[in-house]
Amino acid sequence: MTRRPVTSEPAPAAQPAAAQPSTDGEARSGGRLFIVATPIGNLSDVTLRALEVLRTVPLVVAEDTRISRRLLVRHGIDARLTSFHARNAAARLPDLLAHLRGGLDLALVTDAGTPGVSDPGEELVRAWATEGGSIVPIPGPSAVLAAIVASGLAGPRWSFEGFLPRSGRDRRERLGRIAADERATVLFESPNRVVATLVDLAAACGPDRPIAICRELTKVHEEVVRGSVGHLATLGRQGALTLRGEFVLVVGASMGGTVTATEPLAAADAIRAARAEVERHVAQGMARGEAARRVAWSSGLPRRSLYQAPDHQDRETAAGARGSRPPP
Amino acid sequence: MTRRPVTSEPAPAAQPAAAQPSTDGEARSGGRLFIVATPIGNLSDVTLRALEVLRTVPLVVAEDTRISRRLLVRHGIDARLTSFHARNAAARLPDLLAHLRGGLDLALVTDAGTPGVSDPGEELVRAWATEGGSIVPIPGPSAVLAAIVASGLAGPRWSFEGFLPRSGRDRRERLGRIAADERATVLFESPNRVVATLVDLAAACGPDRPIAICRELTKVHEEVVRGSVGHLATLGRQGALTLRGEFVLVVGASMGGTVTATEPLAAADAIRAARAEVERHVAQGMARGEAARRVAWSSGLPRRSLYQAPDHQDRETAAGARGSRPPP
Repeated sequence: MTRRPVTSEPAPAAQPAAAQPSTDGEARSGGRLFIVATPIGNLSDVTLRALEVLRTVPLVVAEDTRISRRLLVRHGIDARLTSFHARNAAARLPDLLAHLRGGLDLALVTDAGTPGVSDPGEELVRAWATEGGSIVPIPGPSAVLAAIVASGLAGPRWSFEGFLPRSGRDRRERLGRIAADERATVLFESPNRVVATLVDLAAACGPDRPIAICRELTKVHEEVVRGSVGHLATLGRQGALTLRGEFVLVVGASMGGTVTATEPLAAADAIRAARAEVERHVAQGMARGEAARRVAWSSGLPRRSLYQAPDHQDRETAAGARGSRPPP
Repeated sequence: MTRRPVTSEPAPAAQPAAAQPSTDGEARSGGRLFIVATPIGNLSDVTLRALEVLRTVPLVVAEDTRISRRLLVRHGIDARLTSFHARNAAARLPDLLAHLRGGLDLALVTDAGTPGVSDPGEELVRAWATEGGSIVPIPGPSAVLAAIVASGLAGPRWSFEGFLPRSGRDRRERLGRIAADERATVLFESPNRVVATLVDLAAACGPDRPIAICRELTKVHEEVVRGSVGHLATLGRQGALTLRGEFVLVVGASMGGTVTATEPLAAADAIRAARAEVERHVAQGMARGEAARRVAWSSGLPRRSLYQAPDHQDRETAAGARGSRPPP
């Protein structure tokens, strides 16, 4: 079989010039390994080029062929599918490389999102790159980027940490680094571990650190809950967060300053502290509505609860507890 | 104008349940802010849902309306476009928030890729999030993710650093952190600064650190050059790298161990060192072809040049210079 053209562009589709000094040119006659991003939930989150590639390649390599078949059927594509996952990766790799060496193209997909990040496909990509083969990314959905965008917290630099270790020194070290990082951090978490991770993040970063809990992104029940990590940890412990579906957490950047490990503030304390912060903004000339809005955002408390001024004693306690950093 | 449905799904399009504890519910009657990822080069890299959203929203907010118009025209979409960029962001923000508060949807796009990352749109997203408004990410292309995939270097965790500072202590500190990071790092760089950054990375990380230089991703002249940062810095200084277009660099993770700042090896030294490494692998039982392939990958040298064994003296020098860590 010869290479079929994969393009719906007036200009030819990206064909890496393959000027790779790491290779001797031998592999240029090999097939192209297309790394195709697929939906993370909504089946319409697929690009025109992804559909064109999936339609024209002689072989699609999928993590779970049943899941990928659903996407293909939805878009009327009858591709040849084969599975490639953690359990069969070692056995399949030589065949797939032989396919590529033979000059045939191949599309790699995963169950959701962009392949090559925490999945067995990484090994195929690395192996073909090592041989100097053509690797063509077909960009599209990624849960990491979708969460960054939905959070409104990321700024110009950020880290992706995947899943945290479940316990032990490794977990503590990673939490400590997230706490100190002046970049936002994106984490994956399973539903039954979200609350534990919120509690640990509140202890490591202090309760004021802003966070966005993204659930079921792009799906029918998509939900983004924003607030301070302390407040959301408290809500989580009280059973007030929905804990179904897929979670991506975006932890705001450290704004500098020393953070000591503390328990999240109790709800009453949190409201008192937040009201004090509103008063502080008002004293500095900010309109009360705007101050309440900002503090609601940074504290995760209902705006309504923030209109009543605290008494003097509260204000002092609160200012100390919440520090003097402005909301993000 | 009323909200038009934005869906091509049997299930309704994602409508965030907006169970945001940070808001008082007031904004649920507001419009939805769709954050729409657009192509990073190839105009077919756009999702079905992105096209549907752009087709149906009453207003599209773009960084450069001429660039976004090109995409819309290409896909037969006649949307109302308005600009939102660094120079007019402060003046436009109140109008856009008023539009959303009035219950009208709005789609935010940038010139390329996923908005909300290093662009003025971030401010709009943050402001609408602060009011508790609905924010709906429409995931799609991102240069960061495309580079990660194309590099074959990223692994399960990575950092995005954007553009490095051009000089001074800030730049040195960031380079130092990249050198020490056990995660891969993604960097943006302008064509006329790529060589300087490669040289500095080689000094900070040592010449052996693997790197992928991604150029013009998804475009006609897409190119991914992989090799060691020392070798590619040398090639760059010799004028042997193409320095046109848009660059994304993916620096491999630190594999641990101490790295001292060194100049990149001269070409002859690099070949001698690489040949020594091949011999070392062969002595440990690896097939010569496989050893040459691996070392070609990690050193960025042509595989062909690695078949000749070095003399004994070379081997000693080289082993010291290159360290004993296996290629990635």
